[in-house]
Amino acid sequence: MELNLEQGTPILERTPRVLRALLSTLGAEWIGATEGPETWSPYDILGHLVHGERTDWIPRAEIILAQGEHRLFPPFDRFAQFEESRGKSLDDLLDEFAQRRAQSLATLASWRLTEAQLALEGEHPVFGTVTLRQLLATWVAHDLGHIAQTTRVMAKQYRGAVGPWREFLPIMDR
Amino acid sequence: MELNLEQGTPILERTPRVLRALLSTLGAEWIGATEGPETWSPYDILGHLVHGERTDWIPRAEIILAQGEHRLFPPFDRFAQFEESRGKSLDDLLDEFAQRRAQSLATLASWRLTEAQLALEGEHPVFGTVTLRQLLATWVAHDLGHIAQTTRVMAKQYRGAVGPWREFLPIMDR
Repeated sequence: MELNLEQGTPILERTPRVLRALLSTLGAEWIGATEGPETWSPYDILGHLVHGERTDWIPRAEIILAQGEHRLFPPFDRFAQFEESRGKSLDDLLDEFAQRRAQSLATLASWRLTEAQLALEGEHPVFGTVTLRQLLATWVAHDLGHIAQTTRVMAKQYRGAVGPWREFLPIMDR
Repeated sequence: MELNLEQGTPILERTPRVLRALLSTLGAEWIGATEGPETWSPYDILGHLVHGERTDWIPRAEIILAQGEHRLFPPFDRFAQFEESRGKSLDDLLDEFAQRRAQSLATLASWRLTEAQLALEGEHPVFGTVTLRQLLATWVAHDLGHIAQTTRVMAKQYRGAVGPWREFLPIMDR
């Protein structure tokens, strides 16, 4: 289906609450767990979402809406959270994400976007022309993908512990 | 890591709240969405979790703990929800799941399981001998796997809508 704001915005609103319900107050054995070297923990993923809120979704939408001479998005740093999250607890990140997401959604709502605006274009540094509608759909899908990743990382901590049930748990080998 | 109850139980407690935060009051375009024919929607997945609460985890643990002559688990019906959920709203299922899960966890806590009990064995109808510890680890991983599945199904509804970003969203092709 195509993105429309009435269907997509509720997902964006929910993500901070979903991650809080899933992660708040859990121990390091869960929030620091990864899928192996060079992969992300729930804590890393949450920092990545916070960084996206600061530098990706709304700033890129603003570039598109301005329709200025330069519509090229600055590249998004997919590793910024390793620096930015330093010294913050998981609950700090949950709070920061909830606040920043609420601000983002207030900004989005204030624009009262029209169909014509959703069709406006910007330039992605890797794959070129994209529309505002595609950017907003990606924001929603990106949230959902990272919730899936978070729970997959956690599930894999029991890959050995489940014994022969592993055969029935495809999540263990994704 | 191996299952221990202090680490595993908090995950089991959270799942009803996570699914409520994610799904409650969403429209049919999300809760009825699937990955294609013969695949499950978020609504179907929730019905499956309710059915597991009734017939799988605690009943199988009871079979193991009894250490009776017959330790073979009855097969689990992975399609029961298509009958059992009929006529129920998503919010009905969220309520039922929360209630049944709370009961399951009260039962589990009342057992005050020892290490020796966690090592007791039962017979799985497909792959034979399993321990109570493996059963409980599977319960946790099964929850996490189905949260991942739920968000994957939802993300895929925007597979076309994200345009060229699909390349950066591995969830779309899992």
